[in-house]
Amino acid sequence: MGGFNTSGKSLDFLRGCTIDFDLKSGMSETAETGKRYLSEMKGMFADEAAFDALLAKGDTLVYEFHGLPLPEHEGDLAFGCSIVYPGKVGDEYFMTKGHFHTILDTAEVYYCLSGSGYMLLENKDGDCSAHELTPGKAVYVPKGYAHRSVNTGAAEKLVTFFVFRADAGHDYGTIEQKGYRKLIVEADGKPVMTDNPKWR
Amino acid sequence: MGGFNTSGKSLDFLRGCTIDFDLKSGMSETAETGKRYLSEMKGMFADEAAFDALLAKGDTLVYEFHGLPLPEHEGDLAFGCSIVYPGKVGDEYFMTKGHFHTILDTAEVYYCLSGSGYMLLENKDGDCSAHELTPGKAVYVPKGYAHRSVNTGAAEKLVTFFVFRADAGHDYGTIEQKGYRKLIVEADGKPVMTDNPKWR
Repeated sequence: MGGFNTSGKSLDFLRGCTIDFDLKSGMSETAETGKRYLSEMKGMFADEAAFDALLAKGDTLVYEFHGLPLPEHEGDLAFGCSIVYPGKVGDEYFMTKGHFHTILDTAEVYYCLSGSGYMLLENKDGDCSAHELTPGKAVYVPKGYAHRSVNTGAAEKLVTFFVFRADAGHDYGTIEQKGYRKLIVEADGKPVMTDNPKWR
Repeated sequence: MGGFNTSGKSLDFLRGCTIDFDLKSGMSETAETGKRYLSEMKGMFADEAAFDALLAKGDTLVYEFHGLPLPEHEGDLAFGCSIVYPGKVGDEYFMTKGHFHTILDTAEVYYCLSGSGYMLLENKDGDCSAHELTPGKAVYVPKGYAHRSVNTGAAEKLVTFFVFRADAGHDYGTIEQKGYRKLIVEADGKPVMTDNPKWR
C-alpha cells in the first residue's frame, strides 16, 4: 500500500489501490490464488494413460492464478498473475485449461515475467497459432480467441501478468467438450505444435 | 516474435502477436514511443518561474509512452509502457500530463517495473489520492478517475506497464484547463501531497 489519502483497504476498486505481484514469481502478499490440480484436468491432455499414471503418483499442482473480486462491469479490468508449473503428461507440456471469454469479442493481454512457453490461440473458425513467451514479451490475445498458457520450460514456472475486461467472463465448456485443435508437445527435446488426435 | 503458425507481422491485433517490453527499462525493439518534452508541459507545473528557468537550460524529455495502433473497439485493449524521467520543476516532481478517459467510466491497470513514484488520482467530485509505486506493485485506476504518474526517484526512471480499454480515449483538456487539485512535491527531502495553489 503506501500513499496519501488512500482508503487503507488492501482491495479498493472504487477509489483505487495497489496490489503487489512479485516481478519474478508472480505471487502476492495481498491476493490469494486459485489452484488447479492435475485431477481437475482430466480429459484435457491427449495421452490418457500417461495422465492416469501421473495422477497415481500424486495430485500435483498444475497452475494457479489470481481471481480478484473486481466489479463485473464493462468499464472495469480484471488482473493478476498466472503461474503454470513445469511438467508433462506424456509428451504434452503442463498448461492451463484454456477458455474463450463469455463475451466472445473481448481481448486479453499477458505480459511474461519469468519462465518460457507459448500462448496457444484458437478461434471458432479454426484459426490456430502459438506465440512464444519469454520474460519481457507481451502477447495480445485478440477478440474471439480461446487462449491457453503452456509451460515448455524444464524446471521453471511460467509466470505472466494478465489484464482483461472484468465483465468478459470465462467459457471453459467449449474447450472441455471439444478440446483444442492443436497441442504443444515435446519432440526431439523441443516444443512443437501438432494436431490433437482427440479433437472433435 | 517466435511461435507456430503466427502471421509473422510484428503487430497483428486480429490474429495475435507478441511485443517485447524490457522488464526494467520498458523499452521495445518493436514499438516506438511518443515523447513529451518539457516545452509541451507549459502551465502544468505550479512554479512557473522554475519552469521557465529549467526550460531555458534545454528542452528536456519528461516522459515517453507506447501508443500502439490497436483497433479502437470496446473489446480491444491498449497496452504498453510509460517511462517518466527523474527531475523536478522547483519542488514538484516530473510527471505525466494526466488525463481522464473520454469514456469516463473505464479503468486502467499500471504495473510498476522499475523506479519509484506515485499514481495521483482525482475524480470529478474532488476525491484525490496518491498510490505509491515501487517495482512489483500494480495500481488500479478506477472508473472515473484522472490519473498521473509522478516520478519521485532521485535518478531512476519510473517505468510502468499499462493496459486500458482501446476505445477509452484520452481527455487531456480537463486537466490542462483546471489542473489537479493536488501536487506531489518534495519537502524535507521526501515526497508529500499538497494542495495545488493554481487549481481553479
